[in-house]
Amino acid sequence: MSLAGRATRVRERLVDLDALLISDLTNIRWLTGFTGSNGWVVLTANGLALITDGRYGEQANQQMAAAGVVGEVLVGRTSDAVLAHLVAATGRHRHVGFEAAHVSYQQHAAWVAAFSTTLRPSAGIVEAERRVKDDGEIEAMAQACRIADQALAEVAPLLGTGLTEAQVRNLLEIRMRELGATGPSYDTIVATGPTNAALPHHRPTDALIREGHTVIIDVGALVDGYHSDMTRSFVIGEPSRLQRELYELVLAAQLAGVAAVGPGVRCRDLDAVCRGVIAEAGYGDWFSHGTGHGVGLLIHEDPYSNATSEASLQVGDVVTVEPGVYREGFGGVRVEDLVVVTSTGCRVLTASAKDSPCPPSPPTT
Amino acid sequence: MSLAGRATRVRERLVDLDALLISDLTNIRWLTGFTGSNGWVVLTANGLALITDGRYGEQANQQMAAAGVVGEVLVGRTSDAVLAHLVAATGRHRHVGFEAAHVSYQQHAAWVAAFSTTLRPSAGIVEAERRVKDDGEIEAMAQACRIADQALAEVAPLLGTGLTEAQVRNLLEIRMRELGATGPSYDTIVATGPTNAALPHHRPTDALIREGHTVIIDVGALVDGYHSDMTRSFVIGEPSRLQRELYELVLAAQLAGVAAVGPGVRCRDLDAVCRGVIAEAGYGDWFSHGTGHGVGLLIHEDPYSNATSEASLQVGDVVTVEPGVYREGFGGVRVEDLVVVTSTGCRVLTASAKDSPCPPSPPTT
Repeated sequence: MSLAGRATRVRERLVDLDALLISDLTNIRWLTGFTGSNGWVVLTANGLALITDGRYGEQANQQMAAAGVVGEVLVGRTSDAVLAHLVAATGRHRHVGFEAAHVSYQQHAAWVAAFSTTLRPSAGIVEAERRVKDDGEIEAMAQACRIADQALAEVAPLLGTGLTEAQVRNLLEIRMRELGATGPSYDTIVATGPTNAALPHHRPTDALIREGHTVIIDVGALVDGYHSDMTRSFVIGEPSRLQRELYELVLAAQLAGVAAVGPGVRCRDLDAVCRGVIAEAGYGDWFSHGTGHGVGLLIHEDPYSNATSEASLQVGDVVTVEPGVYREGFGGVRVEDLVVVTSTGCRVLTASAKDSPCPPSPPTT
Repeated sequence: MSLAGRATRVRERLVDLDALLISDLTNIRWLTGFTGSNGWVVLTANGLALITDGRYGEQANQQMAAAGVVGEVLVGRTSDAVLAHLVAATGRHRHVGFEAAHVSYQQHAAWVAAFSTTLRPSAGIVEAERRVKDDGEIEAMAQACRIADQALAEVAPLLGTGLTEAQVRNLLEIRMRELGATGPSYDTIVATGPTNAALPHHRPTDALIREGHTVIIDVGALVDGYHSDMTRSFVIGEPSRLQRELYELVLAAQLAGVAAVGPGVRCRDLDAVCRGVIAEAGYGDWFSHGTGHGVGLLIHEDPYSNATSEASLQVGDVVTVEPGVYREGFGGVRVEDLVVVTSTGCRVLTASAKDSPCPPSPPTT
């Protein structure tokens, strides 16, 4: 993936800044290809300096070269030496911005004491460019979706055959690795039964998946640093009337949400579409989270779709649509797809079947 | 694990504060057992309030009850509602501290605008208690070490039998899961050959592990949220003179470091012990990182052992000792153990063999 044009796109946003001091490691990765755990970038009209510690100097040079990014790497072997590089790289500039959402109060105070230039808070400059995915990024995420689809297709028939939540999680994560993922996109959720499935973000336990349970599986893969995100819900055995009713309700809400996605759509309106379907059926209180979020190098990033979101969708956004209902004693149902916003609506990247709450039959051996 | 006494220990550190607003999710997990991805705690002389969003209300109540922690859970379904809870929970207190290292400049500015009380920066209050591990925490980490030891014992004999870095990583991570780990402690490092092994934090690729390579494997397991951390290095085939010399040098430095660990020892002195051995042999420039770090609910936490560290070791610290040498064209060697500081020195939690750079022979089938 060539990242060569990204610095130029960010420079165009530095309207009244001579330099931007970038701290967020995801922004740095997007901009330079550098994946180390410690680093800063000083971006100016003509230059890009990546400052890191002794563990990462060689790696930073390799990764920037591989990504086609022009810039210099400055290595400080101690935190004082790193700070000295930051002071030197910013010192000759008058209007230097810093990422106010990614710099701690304490870090800012230390910088103010050490820097010879005044730092100005800035917000979302790199993120505004990073949010819109290019073809290479979308293909990495589509590949991550295909891997998760395939893993789930192999594991779903085993639900209800005596496996625990943790065993299902392990099978999914191992299979995704074998299919070429760098790893899971996040801690895979497998939540079964009236108590565990009532928690939207349950962590898998040794609980057995039993007849009569609702089961929520939230699974994604990681490919080249890019995430996928998908949820499917199941009922083990013959669904009860309530289980079937709520499954169909959530599915209807989710389909309505996907149909509503398109450029210019306000994220709060997308949320209202899904929420409206569920509220109208009388289950508004059971839908206890937002409708979705952006996905990319982070599993959760802008834009967020919830009742108070100020964002609107744009072409190239990759977002989830994931309404759900949860109640202790019942369990839960969530259906989630990952979609990329296109000029005419959206393209759905996740392809696992969602028309029925019944898992496919186990293979006969 | 009962966490009941932890709030009391932190309260004793609130010397001139009436309340502490805790933002760091690791501190919150340590204090309350809550593992959600969004939450704040307001800790006062008599109370503890956990504020979270709609995804996590039920989970927070369950986890605090399971941990024996007394407190209330306040749920805000929107970020505005969460902020209102924070304002209400702090408003009746005069001296309210916030975690200056864990609150962004932007978050602080928003709080200043919304809060009715003045916020005071504080640093490391919870961390000072969290750093010292109790028996339950040490046992979780010892179990994580045993799992990584076992996985490496099974996989090390396969080095040089035609596997790639990524395949070795997959085998290790799958085996740790099967042995009971929640997952890997961090992205497992498998780095082979003159270029990849020269990067201390290389990510596994499809590079084949070949005769003549140095191979660095840095692998740990996660158990109940607690991490292990261990590195072993290997030479495939008969080691060259330089490979053997550097392996023995790093091992000598590492053994000297472990022998130097004990309560009251300054972390910079521990670093100097390892660095001195390597520098004396003329390879000081090849040792491009610090000697170690604390490990617990985070893979990297206080205390850090490097040339500028201000910390001293104390009983209950769990730290790594991990000198290494790296050079493009040669590759690298790192040897790392995880140790717990005891009243008489330390106990080494990682047990994998390190006396030789040669991997065990592959099993004959």
